[in-house]
Amino acid sequence: MNEQFLQSLLKKMTLDEKIAQLLQLATPFFKGSNHEGQITGPMEQMGIREEDIQNSGSVLGASGAEEIINIQKAHLNENRLGIPLLFMSDIVHGFKTIFPVPLAIGCSWDLGMAEKSAEIAAKEAAVSGVHVTFAPMVDLVRDPRWGRVMESTGEDPYLNSEYAKAFVRGFQGSDLTNDLDRVAACVKHFAAYGAPEGGRDYNTVDISERTLRESYLPAYKAALDEGCEMVMTAFNVVDGIPATGNKRLMRDLLRDEWNFDGVLISDWGAVKEMIPHGVAEDEKEAALKAINAGVDIEMMTACYVNHLKELVEENTIDESIIDEGVMRILELKQKLGLFENPFRGADEKREKELVFSELHRKAARELAVNSSVLLKNDGMLPLSKEQSVALIGPFAENGDVLGPWSWLGSREDAATLSSGISEKLLGAKLIVEKGCGIEAGTTELINGAVKAAESADVIVLALGEASEMSGEAGCRSNIQLPDIQLELIAKLKELNKPMAAVLFNGRPLDLHGVIDEANAVLEAWYPGSEGGHAVADILFGDENPSGKLTMSFPYSVGQVPVYYNAFNTGRPQGAPDAQERYVSQYLDIPNEPLFPFGYGLSYTTFSYSEAALSTDTLHPDASVTLTVNVQNTGELAGEEVVQLYIRDLSGEVVRPLKELKAFKKILLQPGESAEVKFTINEEMLKYYHSNLEFNSDPGKFIASVGPNSKELKECTFELLK
Amino acid sequence: MNEQFLQSLLKKMTLDEKIAQLLQLATPFFKGSNHEGQITGPMEQMGIREEDIQNSGSVLGASGAEEIINIQKAHLNENRLGIPLLFMSDIVHGFKTIFPVPLAIGCSWDLGMAEKSAEIAAKEAAVSGVHVTFAPMVDLVRDPRWGRVMESTGEDPYLNSEYAKAFVRGFQGSDLTNDLDRVAACVKHFAAYGAPEGGRDYNTVDISERTLRESYLPAYKAALDEGCEMVMTAFNVVDGIPATGNKRLMRDLLRDEWNFDGVLISDWGAVKEMIPHGVAEDEKEAALKAINAGVDIEMMTACYVNHLKELVEENTIDESIIDEGVMRILELKQKLGLFENPFRGADEKREKELVFSELHRKAARELAVNSSVLLKNDGMLPLSKEQSVALIGPFAENGDVLGPWSWLGSREDAATLSSGISEKLLGAKLIVEKGCGIEAGTTELINGAVKAAESADVIVLALGEASEMSGEAGCRSNIQLPDIQLELIAKLKELNKPMAAVLFNGRPLDLHGVIDEANAVLEAWYPGSEGGHAVADILFGDENPSGKLTMSFPYSVGQVPVYYNAFNTGRPQGAPDAQERYVSQYLDIPNEPLFPFGYGLSYTTFSYSEAALSTDTLHPDASVTLTVNVQNTGELAGEEVVQLYIRDLSGEVVRPLKELKAFKKILLQPGESAEVKFTINEEMLKYYHSNLEFNSDPGKFIASVGPNSKELKECTFELLK
Repeated sequence: MNEQFLQSLLKKMTLDEKIAQLLQLATPFFKGSNHEGQITGPMEQMGIREEDIQNSGSVLGASGAEEIINIQKAHLNENRLGIPLLFMSDIVHGFKTIFPVPLAIGCSWDLGMAEKSAEIAAKEAAVSGVHVTFAPMVDLVRDPRWGRVMESTGEDPYLNSEYAKAFVRGFQGSDLTNDLDRVAACVKHFAAYGAPEGGRDYNTVDISERTLRESYLPAYKAALDEGCEMVMTAFNVVDGIPATGNKRLMRDLLRDEWNFDGVLISDWGAVKEMIPHGVAEDEKEAALKAINAGVDIEMMTACYVNHLKELVEENTIDESIIDEGVMRILELKQKLGLFENPFRGADEKREKELVFSELHRKAARELAVNSSVLLKNDGMLPLSKEQSVALIGPFAENGDVLGPWSWLGSREDAATLSSGISEKLLGAKLIVEKGCGIEAGTTELINGAVKAAESADVIVLALGEASEMSGEAGCRSNIQLPDIQLELIAKLKELNKPMAAVLFNGRPLDLHGVIDEANAVLEAWYPGSEGGHAVADILFGDENPSGKLTMSFPYSVGQVPVYYNAFNTGRPQGAPDAQERYVSQYLDIPNEPLFPFGYGLSYTTFSYSEAALSTDTLHPDASVTLTVNVQNTGELAGEEVVQLYIRDLSGEVVRPLKELKAFKKILLQPGESAEVKFTINEEMLKYYHSNLEFNSDPGKFIASVGPNSKELKECTFELLK
Repeated sequence: MNEQFLQSLLKKMTLDEKIAQLLQLATPFFKGSNHEGQITGPMEQMGIREEDIQNSGSVLGASGAEEIINIQKAHLNENRLGIPLLFMSDIVHGFKTIFPVPLAIGCSWDLGMAEKSAEIAAKEAAVSGVHVTFAPMVDLVRDPRWGRVMESTGEDPYLNSEYAKAFVRGFQGSDLTNDLDRVAACVKHFAAYGAPEGGRDYNTVDISERTLRESYLPAYKAALDEGCEMVMTAFNVVDGIPATGNKRLMRDLLRDEWNFDGVLISDWGAVKEMIPHGVAEDEKEAALKAINAGVDIEMMTACYVNHLKELVEENTIDESIIDEGVMRILELKQKLGLFENPFRGADEKREKELVFSELHRKAARELAVNSSVLLKNDGMLPLSKEQSVALIGPFAENGDVLGPWSWLGSREDAATLSSGISEKLLGAKLIVEKGCGIEAGTTELINGAVKAAESADVIVLALGEASEMSGEAGCRSNIQLPDIQLELIAKLKELNKPMAAVLFNGRPLDLHGVIDEANAVLEAWYPGSEGGHAVADILFGDENPSGKLTMSFPYSVGQVPVYYNAFNTGRPQGAPDAQERYVSQYLDIPNEPLFPFGYGLSYTTFSYSEAALSTDTLHPDASVTLTVNVQNTGELAGEEVVQLYIRDLSGEVVRPLKELKAFKKILLQPGESAEVKFTINEEMLKYYHSNLEFNSDPGKFIASVGPNSKELKECTFELLK
C-alpha cells in the first residue's frame, strides 16, 4: 500500500467525508463505546450530525482493547469507504503503570530510563488499542505557579530537548509500522505554552522572538528531529495570535522552515476558543484561521464540520487545503498499518498480561527512586530499620501519589508510603497518623498526631499538594505547603525528635516552614504507582538518592520567575565595583533561588578536581576536551550527575550566565574516582544573533563543571574563527 | 547666533575637545563646586585627565545658583573656546518644594495640576541654575515589586502619554529659549525600563515588539511630540541588547523612524555597564557600541574620553559620528541661550524668593489632596474635629513623606501628619504614638501605643514603607506592609474603635492585614512637602478625595503582573460555557486585583445613567458621541473622574479587554448632574497588526463608561470602512 492508494482513496471521498476526517471527538460519541449515546445533548449543541461521526477520522480518550475494537468494528460497518479510526489518548507518564510525573523524571537525568518509561507506557497503551499518545509535553517552564510545570521536564532547553527525544524514541521505537507495541507520539504544546503570564493557565504569552527561538522552541524541534509523528497546538497566543490560528507559527515556521509534514492537531476546543481570544468573530472565522494556519484535526469543537464546506463553496479557501490535511491523516493511518489491520496492537489477552505487570511496576519503582531529590539531610537519613517510626501527614496512607494525567492509573493500587515503610521495618514500631488533611484540619487532629509521635524514635512527615492542586488549570498564587500542614510541622517540631519530610507535589515549592524545621527533606514529587516503595527504599538506604532538580526552587513566590540560565544585568550583585544599594537585587530576599537547577544530595559525597582543558583555543572544525576527576568521598556507592555549563563572555546580544551543554551520570563505589570527559565544539556555542541568525562568535568562553548549576569549577577557552 | 556659528565653533574644536564635550560628570569633579576636589581617586580610576574636565560639556547633579555660577565661571576661564557647561539634575517631582511622587500625581487624573507641578519644579530649578531635568520618567509599570513604579504615572499607555505631555509642557513651557524659568526636559528611560523580570531593578526585559510598540513606547513618543529636548537610555536590554548600545532602538527607531534630533544621554554608568551585560569585552567596545547606537552623552563613565579618539584614528568610526553628537549638544546650549548668557536663570535673589515659597507649597498641598486615593470607607471618614484622635504608627511624626527622588527636599520642612491633624482639632485631644518603627519594633512599644489609644474616640494609623523601600534599586519580593506594622494593626483592632489607616508608600501593596481591619483606608503615597496638611484636609473633610488608582492593587504578590488592559484568554472565567475547573484562574485567589485601575472613593456618591451613542456606526472620517449622565447623589460636593474605555471585539491580533481612551474630571454639587460627552473616532481604534502596521479594522466595538475600569456601562458600535 502506498501514496497512490491514498490518493485514489482521497479522490473517492466527498467533501463532507474529507471534512469529517478532520474532526476528532471523544469516545462517548461513538457506537461501541462503553459510554455510547451519553452525548446526544452536546451533539445537538455542536451541530454535529450522525454522518459526521460516521465519517470522522479519529477518537479521543478511548482505552481498553475491548472498547476500541468495538468502536472500530462499528465504525468500519458504517463508514462508506472503510477508513479506520485513529485512537488517540493522553498517555503522559504511564498508562496504568504510572511513572513519576515528567518533572520528576526530569530530575532523574536518566534518558535511558525516561525512554524506558515511555516504551512501557506505549506497550500498555498499544495492547489496549491506542494508536497515538498526546505526549511528550516539552514546554519549557519557569513559573511554579503554573499547574502544568509537573508535566514538563523543566527549565532547560537542552535537557528538555534530550528528554523530548528520549520520550519520542520510547513511544515510537524505531519501526512504528511494524512494532505494534509502540504508539505514535504527539509533541505539545506548540508553542511556548509554558510561559503564561502570572503563571495562570491559558493566559497570554508575550516573549520576544529571540527568546522563543533560544529557549522555548528547541525541545519541540528535537522531538520532530527524532521523528515525532504529530504536533499539538498550544492554547496560548504567540505574538498576539492564538497558536491554533497562527499562520506564521504553523505554516511559516513549523511547516516551511522545519519541514514538518505530519499531523497537526488542535488542543481540546482550541479552534473555537479563537472567539473568546478575540481573533475570530464566529465559528466560521475560527475554522478559516485554523485551516489556513495548517491545523489538520480539530479536537472537540465543530467549526470545521460546520463551516469548511461553506468556505470552499464560496471560494474563500481551496479544497486542496482540506485535501492536504486529510492526506496527512491518511498517511498516519497508513504508517500505523490501520488499512491492513485496523485494530493494530489491540489484544485483550496481552492486555491482561502486560498492563500493570510486575515488570512494569518494577521499572516504575526504579524511576521513582531516581526521580526523588534529596534537598536536605543533616545525617538523619538513611533511617535505621530498627528504629520506631511515626509516619505523620496527609500523604501517609494516601494513594494520591500518581499526579495529574494519570487517568488510567488507580490510586487504590498505588503503593502508599505507609505500606512502603512497613515493609522495611524489622519489627520496629510504625505509628501512622494523618495529622491533618491536605488543606484542612483541626487542632485536635494535629494534637493527636503529636501525641502519637511522642513514643517514636523518629518522625517521617508525608506532606504535599493534592494532585488537583497542580496539573491543567491547577494554578496557585501561593506556592507554600497549605497552612494546616505548616502548622502540623511546627507542632511536631516541638517534640525535638529527628524529623524527615517527604514531599508529594507537582511544582517547586516555597519551602519556608519546612526546610529549616525538618532534619531532612526528600522531594518525591508525584512518584507514581510504586511511589511508596521507592520512597521507602530511599528513606531506609536500600537506594541512594541521585535526583537533581531541573527547575529552580524559588526563595518565595515574590522571586518568580527565577531560573539558572538567566542573563547578567549591568549591575550584578557581588561584582567588584558593585555598590551597596544600586545593584540588581531585592531588599528582602536573595537573588538566588533556595535550591538551584541541578541541585540534589546523595547519601555519599563527591569531590570534584579542578577542571582541565585539552587546549584553551577552539577552532570551528575541532574540539576541546574538558576533564574533571570526580571521587566518591563517602561511605556508600552513589550516582552523581556531572554537569557541564558554558558561558559566552561577550556576545552580539546578551548571553546566559550559564547554559547546560552536557552531563554524565556516573556510579561510583566508596573511594572510587572517575575521570569524566566532555567534548566541547563550536556547535555548542551557537546562538541567535540580533538578526536571528544562529551562529557562534569568536571570543572567550567559560566552561564549568560541577554537581549543580551553582558549585562549579571553571576554566576558560577561546573560540578562534 | 545660528547654525553657522555652531558649525564654525565645531570646526575650531580639536578631536579631544569634541570627545570631552560628550562627557558628563558629577559636580565634585568641577572647580567652583562645593565639593571640589573630593574626586581625585575616582578620576584616576576612570582615567580622566584634567583637560577632559576642562573640555567637558555638561555637569550632573549641581543645584543652587551660587555653586552653578561658580562652576560655570571657573569653566569659562579654562575652556579654550569658551563653551559653557550644561547643568543637568534629577528634578523629578519637585525641586525643594516636593510634590507627590509621580505615581501619586498619576492618581490625580489632573493634567493641569501635573503640568503646574512641573512648572513650579522648573522655576525653582531654573533660578537655582539648572538647565535640564532628567524627567519625566514615563516608563509603563505592571510589577509592584519594582521600586521605581513610584516614579511612573502607572500602567496605562494613554494616560502615561497624557502625563508625559503635561510634564514636558510644565518643564519646558512654550518658549524655552526666552522663558528663563523653564528647563529642558529629558524623557526616560528609553525603552521599557518598567518591565524588569521579577520586578528586580536593572533586570532583563523580554517582551515582543508588538507589546513594546503598543504599551511601552507611546508615552516616550508623546513626550517627544510635545517637544521634549532630550532622551535618556534605559539600563535594561531591549530584544537582547542593552538600550545604551542598541542601534536598532536608538538609530532606527528613535532617530530615523521618530525623527528625534535632540540629545541622547546614557543613564548613570550605562555605557560601561555593557561589559557586565556581556555585549562588550571592554570599555573600547562599549564606547563603540554606544556611539554607533547614537548616544551623545556618556554619563559618569569614561569609555568615550578614553577610547573614541583611538576608534577614529584606527578608522573604526568616522569623526563625523562624533561631530553629530557634539552638534546636538551645542544646539541645545544654543537653544538655552547659554552662549549669550551662560548662567541663564541662575539668580540668587530670586532663588531665595521663589524656592519653597508659600505659593509653591500651596500648589503641592493641593496636588497632594488630589493624588490621595480613598480605598475604603465605611462612613468613618471624614472625622469630626471635635473627636479625640489617637494617631499611631511609624509615620505619625515622620517627615519621610517626600518619597524617593527628592534629594533637595528637606524632611525637616515637610508637614507631618501629626502637625496636619493638630491644626484641625478644635480643642479635642490628639494622642500621638509611634507604636513601632517601619520595619522593627517591640511588643512593649506596641502595647504602649494600644494603651495610649484606649482613651481616644478614633484611631488614625499612619503606616507605610520607608522611602528607601522603593525608588531605584528599592525592590521588594514581599509587597505587604512590614510584619511589625501588621502586628500593630492587629493589636489596635482589639480595642474595637473606629480605625482609619493612612498609607505612605511608593507601590501598590498587598493590603492583607489592613484592608479588612481598618474602617477606612486612605492611600496617601509619598505626598510631598505638604503631605501632612493635605492628608489632614481629607481626613477631616475640608477636602473631598477624588484620586483614582492608575496601577492595579494586586490581591497578593502571587498574582503579579495584574493590570486592567490585559487580553482575554480562550477560556475566560465567567464565560457562558466556562467549566468549573478548566478556565484561566488561580485555585486560591481571584483573577481580579484587589482594587482595579481607575478605582477610588469619594465622600459623596455618584450615579451613572446608561451610556448612549449618537449613532451605532462609525465611519473613518466621522465620529460617534457617547453621552452619560453623572449625578452627585450624596451630600457633599465632589469631583469625579469619568472614564471611557473601548474594546475591539475581534482583531487580527488579540486586543485588550478594555483600553482607556479618554476621561473627564468633573465637579458636582450635591444633587447636581452633568451630561458628560466623549467623542469616539477611528484614530482611537487603531492598533498594531501582525505586520506591525498601525491601523483599525472594521467590526464591532464596545464603548464603556464609568467610575473605574470595572464598574462600567456598556454600549456597542460598529466601525464601517
